[in-house]
Amino acid sequence: MFTKQQLLSHSIEHVDITRHNVVPLVDAMSSMALSARDLARAADIYDRMLGDGECGVILCLAGSLVSAGLKQVFVEAVRSRMVDCIVSTGANIVDQDFFEGLGYKHYLAPERLKAGVDDDRLRELHVDRIYDTLIDEDELRECDEVTRRIADGLPPRPYSSREFIREMGSYLAEHGKNRESIVLAAYEHDVPIFCPAFSDCSAGFGLVAHQHARGDADKVSIDSAKDFYELTQLKIANPTTGLLVIGGGVPKNFAQDVVVAAEILGQHAPMHKYAVQITVADVRDGALSGSTLKEASSWGKVDTVWEQMVYAEATLAVPLIVGYAYHKGAWKNRKPKRWIRVLEGTTQAVG
Amino acid sequence: MFTKQQLLSHSIEHVDITRHNVVPLVDAMSSMALSARDLARAADIYDRMLGDGECGVILCLAGSLVSAGLKQVFVEAVRSRMVDCIVSTGANIVDQDFFEGLGYKHYLAPERLKAGVDDDRLRELHVDRIYDTLIDEDELRECDEVTRRIADGLPPRPYSSREFIREMGSYLAEHGKNRESIVLAAYEHDVPIFCPAFSDCSAGFGLVAHQHARGDADKVSIDSAKDFYELTQLKIANPTTGLLVIGGGVPKNFAQDVVVAAEILGQHAPMHKYAVQITVADVRDGALSGSTLKEASSWGKVDTVWEQMVYAEATLAVPLIVGYAYHKGAWKNRKPKRWIRVLEGTTQAVG
Amino acid sequence: MFTKQQLLSHSIEHVDITRHNVVPLVDAMSSMALSARDLARAADIYDRMLGDGECGVILCLAGSLVSAGLKQVFVEAVRSRMVDCIVSTGANIVDQDFFEGLGYKHYLAPERLKAGVDDDRLRELHVDRIYDTLIDEDELRECDEVTRRIADGLPPRPYSSREFIREMGSYLAEHGKNRESIVLAAYEHDVPIFCPAFSDCSAGFGLVAHQHARGDADKVSIDSAKDFYELTQLKIANPTTGLLVIGGGVPKNFAQDVVVAAEILGQHAPMHKYAVQITVADVRDGALSGSTLKEASSWGKVDTVWEQMVYAEATLAVPLIVGYAYHKGAWKNRKPKRWIRVLEGTTQAVG
Amino acid sequence: MFTKQQLLSHSIEHVDITRHNVVPLVDAMSSMALSARDLARAADIYDRMLGDGECGVILCLAGSLVSAGLKQVFVEAVRSRMVDCIVSTGANIVDQDFFEGLGYKHYLAPERLKAGVDDDRLRELHVDRIYDTLIDEDELRECDEVTRRIADGLPPRPYSSREFIREMGSYLAEHGKNRESIVLAAYEHDVPIFCPAFSDCSAGFGLVAHQHARGDADKVSIDSAKDFYELTQLKIANPTTGLLVIGGGVPKNFAQDVVVAAEILGQHAPMHKYAVQITVADVRDGALSGSTLKEASSWGKVDTVWEQMVYAEATLAVPLIVGYAYHKGAWKNRKPKRWIRVLEGTTQAVG
Repeated sequence: MFTKQQLLSHSIEHVDITRHNVVPLVDAMSSMALSARDLARAADIYDRMLGDGECGVILCLAGSLVSAGLKQVFVEAVRSRMVDCIVSTGANIVDQDFFEGLGYKHYLAPERLKAGVDDDRLRELHVDRIYDTLIDEDELRECDEVTRRIADGLPPRPYSSREFIREMGSYLAEHGKNRESIVLAAYEHDVPIFCPAFSDCSAGFGLVAHQHARGDADKVSIDSAKDFYELTQLKIANPTTGLLVIGGGVPKNFAQDVVVAAEILGQHAPMHKYAVQITVADVRDGALSGSTLKEASSWGKVDTVWEQMVYAEATLAVPLIVGYAYHKGAWKNRKPKRWIRVLEGTTQAVG
Repeated sequence: MFTKQQLLSHSIEHVDITRHNVVPLVDAMSSMALSARDLARAADIYDRMLGDGECGVILCLAGSLVSAGLKQVFVEAVRSRMVDCIVSTGANIVDQDFFEGLGYKHYLAPERLKAGVDDDRLRELHVDRIYDTLIDEDELRECDEVTRRIADGLPPRPYSSREFIREMGSYLAEHGKNRESIVLAAYEHDVPIFCPAFSDCSAGFGLVAHQHARGDADKVSIDSAKDFYELTQLKIANPTTGLLVIGGGVPKNFAQDVVVAAEILGQHAPMHKYAVQITVADVRDGALSGSTLKEASSWGKVDTVWEQMVYAEATLAVPLIVGYAYHKGAWKNRKPKRWIRVLEGTTQAVG
Repeated sequence: MFTKQQLLSHSIEHVDITRHNVVPLVDAMSSMALSARDLARAADIYDRMLGDGECGVILCLAGSLVSAGLKQVFVEAVRSRMVDCIVSTGANIVDQDFFEGLGYKHYLAPERLKAGVDDDRLRELHVDRIYDTLIDEDELRECDEVTRRIADGLPPRPYSSREFIREMGSYLAEHGKNRESIVLAAYEHDVPIFCPAFSDCSAGFGLVAHQHARGDADKVSIDSAKDFYELTQLKIANPTTGLLVIGGGVPKNFAQDVVVAAEILGQHAPMHKYAVQITVADVRDGALSGSTLKEASSWGKVDTVWEQMVYAEATLAVPLIVGYAYHKGAWKNRKPKRWIRVLEGTTQAVG
Repeated sequence: MFTKQQLLSHSIEHVDITRHNVVPLVDAMSSMALSARDLARAADIYDRMLGDGECGVILCLAGSLVSAGLKQVFVEAVRSRMVDCIVSTGANIVDQDFFEGLGYKHYLAPERLKAGVDDDRLRELHVDRIYDTLIDEDELRECDEVTRRIADGLPPRPYSSREFIREMGSYLAEHGKNRESIVLAAYEHDVPIFCPAFSDCSAGFGLVAHQHARGDADKVSIDSAKDFYELTQLKIANPTTGLLVIGGGVPKNFAQDVVVAAEILGQHAPMHKYAVQITVADVRDGALSGSTLKEASSWGKVDTVWEQMVYAEATLAVPLIVGYAYHKGAWKNRKPKRWIRVLEGTTQAVG
């Protein structure tokens, strides 16, 4: 029987796209069929987004991406001004990225653990499993505690998740133990991060503890409507947009919806001009995650000229697509949007 | 070429589980293999939840379930005290159920539309598509508008989604045009409904409009941390719980997490004693939706004695599983939990 | 640790569609969306095939269907003249159905075994696993041996798999220990069964042993081209045809191809007029199993008026679709085609 | 509306693994999670097979691989002695590879055609569709005709598919118009190719025409039992084996079964020592394609030390896995097995 120390001995190492020039391989895929062809077209569309000076790029993250070794791809994308805004599940941003920023790690599980027959034993050891990846649950509780302390230190009022995550970036800038963090890079490069279901992660635990301790007193709350309002302001301020969607779920829906929200505020905003989604979800269950980008165009959310679905698990497709755009280099001529500055102005004006 | 009127002519009719006694068929499935066997065991576990007087039943909804014809199943489950709490995506509760409560309908799309080649035309006609289902976009805008008016009429403060949805139930009780509504039935039977990503739906549009109009003045906000806090209070007040999870996503994660949240508040809460999940999501992409209930047990969230994954699209599995439990009739001896009453006490104490 | 006896204690019981009138439930599904709607339409198309006096019905079987508890559905379909011809993988017909005809059984595996961590132990015990189902490997070796004895008793020449399987039916009629067998029912009702990859099953083991023992002498061989030739004769003799395809693979392809084969023989044969396929295979990997019936129409194989894909695992969908057609009763007015008689004439003429 | 010429204007170009050194990228993937990690381990296992001088490598092909642009990967693998035997669906070998050897091509379909709404028009134009790939049906009929002429030129007797495919290789050596062919390379390098369901492809059409024309006279037949017998002889002659399985279906089952077949001939053969499978098929429908290699070990077919499933669509995974082994170079020190020579001796002795 394994010990906790044995289980947590092989750490995940994040892939570094700057070291792998995949351009020739992806270009070759463009004359193949099936997923290779779709992936090559998606990579080209992402490169076009970066070459279109007016386009703001919104990256949507769902699934266990950071824990799976993709963190550095997104850190690099932020640093290389290949993304202007991130919409994510809380798990990627808080439980996984912020967690690593605090100095903790993810670990490769022995193959056998995938089967699920040892999960009772893992629970006893305070080891949490994500398919083939392991986390020290005691470290995760520390992460909850840090988010609580951040909440405790803030003036009590409703915050967008974006505002709260920015405070987390500030915390990492001062106290972080691993500078390779999406939250930190986004903080440093004025890239807003939204988690529309923010309580659905480690931060939720911290916030519940915060609110409980405050009792009847004023407290920090997370206003999910404000998230939506802020993202809409960005769309209005920068009408040409592109989506790079990894997984589906709430981030995909939220980012798509912003076109309609702008219209509701009486501002005409065009559909997302570019859109790429990487997913293995199936269209046939009718759920949003697997729904096509064409379907989104019936809702007036995504234009149909430059859209591409890619049927692939993210750990294979993301290094190829983002790596392609990185080595093509359109981002080198791109000015950073620094959308945080738009929001901080906006926030003062309307909030 | 089709007209809008032609497209919106065949309305979805919701399946009525009270008219189909599937008990003999599901019992027969229990001696088969594969999904039939898993479905039969899941149905049995749900029936056990209802026969366990201490167990509070939490229903989690993700995917396009209401629009697909499953609304009446959930309405009946609420009325027959087969569910004590609902955690859902906003789409099911607001865009689809509340929408129908206002008197609008969903429509069967001609088969050809599934392919996506006519989506540009649908956009011109203001018809929105969910795979093989159609919605009148103009009616959906009305639904946004009603949520705005509800927000406008409330005292400005942070609300849990549960509180806001209760106001929607109150609205339907007075103004609704179709009494067959989950929101209305839940209102009448004191069943709380949580949408942890509440701005990610039609209500989000209404709330953005509300907040925009208020400008610098005080406004209604949706506190997603409060959602989590409230659900945790329910778990603490009623430690024995069972999950009936349809689809995955935020509702699944949120409902599972409450066990950990209780612990963070210093209250020991046992893992969910029973758990069933119906999904076609694949475990191999590592995302939460497809992750097994066994995996959740490594996190200390779900017990492994009475758990069952069912690999099936929901429109096939839900009528069989919920119909089985309905016709077995354990619910007839069950006292309603009326958890709204727990929360309204709680809310006064801590909010 | 489990013993062999413990493992092989709960036998699979085959579902009996005659006892479950699913017509009202399936009719209700026709006004729902997603898989429910597709399943209802597929059931209606199958019923139409049976009501069309000219239509010959070809049932295609792939996947572990018999072992999963669907055997009796197909036995009943043969007896109730709901099928005129079967094209199958060898596993369903030989390893599973003929095997049960010899008096052996399939067993429900304990849930834990699905995970695969006990497979080394199963091997030691001579227990074979199909996902959640178990087989006594020693009994399977007996099945191989019977097929060898059948081969040894036949005049040495090339046989179609259909001819060989008919000999297996004759064997069961005389020596079988369980009359509930597809092979036996087909033998008694003159329904031909083709296994186009016949050596890819238990019969292959028997035939290898037969051919090895014969050395240089004349021996029985299985002529897969003759299979194709025979099925083509049926299409020519009975031009109106419908396909009920469960799973994909070789049976689907083989049955579709017969339209083209007829043309190559200079005989115009219309496309399959009706076609239903039940599968969870994904269209996006480009393989035949998941390819749509519309795609088959580009090849001139399947007409597009009455075709329907159903996204469902077979143990859930087959009892509903075949059960629907059974209880609708169009088969009661249907004359059996007795296609064996066509072939035995044909065989004499051309073989 | 498109013309046939417009549709058939962009030909598939096959990816050339010799030009893309993916070793650093795949090595980086070995410290990631999910599919990246599994793919890296699979690539390592394939490299180990090639470094194990005793191991015979069996490549199994199912799905539309050649038409999708993977042909050159397999041609290169044959030429670089990275494979000793191929077991395939007929479609890959005859309709796609032999077809290209005759000088014909596959074409990229316009994206819109994937949806299936234009398939009636394709049929009128004699254009066949495989998801996003197109074929000139008239050229395919030429391919059928060539296989017929090959059959007509052979002495009438039962042939294994391997023998017949070898004649096809001989035909290409003399008459082929494109030397980049798996069938030709295998012919030149003495690599046997088996198609256990050989009539289920273009060759089936040719053979049906051949048999029909022969009437009562002696004719060429395809003995599928002989296929199995030959492959078993190879396993007995070379007990250490490894499987590289792309897709599932008949080729996977057939190659796995050979271990049992050897035992039935009274020869102990060890389980396949190495095994890799690339598939997106789901384990939950119980079919062979998605069944795990661990499950195969319960049947005594595959050892569990060096086995790996990879969840990926083949056009993405194959260039990485085979490319990795190519550039690692273990094959450079490998002696070709030239298994045709084993069989031709064997065939004389027992046939």
